[in-house]
Amino acid sequence: MRVMGIDPGLRNCGWGVIEVDGPRQRHVANGTVRPEGKAMGDRLLSLHQLLSAVFAAMAPDACAVEQTFVNRDGAGTLKLGQARGVVMLVPAQAGLTVGEYAPNAVKKAVVGVGHAHKNQILHMVKMQLPGCDPHSPDAADALAIALCHAAHVQTSGRLAAAVARA
Amino acid sequence: MRVMGIDPGLRNCGWGVIEVDGPRQRHVANGTVRPEGKAMGDRLLSLHQLLSAVFAAMAPDACAVEQTFVNRDGAGTLKLGQARGVVMLVPAQAGLTVGEYAPNAVKKAVVGVGHAHKNQILHMVKMQLPGCDPHSPDAADALAIALCHAAHVQTSGRLAAAVARA
Repeated sequence: MRVMGIDPGLRNCGWGVIEVDGPRQRHVANGTVRPEGKAMGDRLLSLHQLLSAVFAAMAPDACAVEQTFVNRDGAGTLKLGQARGVVMLVPAQAGLTVGEYAPNAVKKAVVGVGHAHKNQILHMVKMQLPGCDPHSPDAADALAIALCHAAHVQTSGRLAAAVARA
Repeated sequence: MRVMGIDPGLRNCGWGVIEVDGPRQRHVANGTVRPEGKAMGDRLLSLHQLLSAVFAAMAPDACAVEQTFVNRDGAGTLKLGQARGVVMLVPAQAGLTVGEYAPNAVKKAVVGVGHAHKNQILHMVKMQLPGCDPHSPDAADALAIALCHAAHVQTSGRLAAAVARA
């Protein structure tokens, strides 16, 4: 199963793809999409085009997006919301259900605690995906989201299988 | 010139189209798009599909979207931001620059004061567009946004023409 994680943003939108086969998981690719354009409409269009191209090239089977912080200023939350809306549209247009995880849930899944620092996440991402060198902090976050989603999907699958056997 | 106004929303997204020819303006159509789906990705996809269909049928030459209030709770702002991102993407994908107006600017353009009530807006929209019967409060707002954008675009055009003559 190929899992893609996305860390939404209007300036830097990180993405990371991993391949998961039971307990084995390996890094496929990661990167950062940087939308262009001055007007908001142009930036959102650029974000959609760039991310759609990455998505088509990577062809993931599952996808998850980080839930955005909402405890900052209202204008910032609105802008990030706009980016997030366009980001979530891309996998939905490909027929995928989009997983959503709060930043703390991602940290807990990858590092083991909900209040890990950026460099702890980077360290654990590199540990769990040998040979990967994240393109940016946003790309590292995106890989962490992919790891979190893979763990969640596999646990859900095992639970469903156990229920079916019972 | 055919002008479309959109009032973004995840539950009710109003749209209104007017035809403007110098000082004359007439109502073309208005309506409310109601996205379906439980998961956020599905709702955003539905919003994009429904609004894209309306946009293709109406083929506007200019388009404007209301700026969302950000003085509510963070989670609400984020959700509205997501809807707004997808809404702004639709005209941008058709190559249009998307106008953005704060609610007070729309009220001022249509009613004359920035703190008009909903029913004052509805009244003035009906006055300025004889024969139109807005489908919903959101559709009425969308028509008001279209009127505001038409006035703005025409004023900008006259200014540019005056500068060119000078």
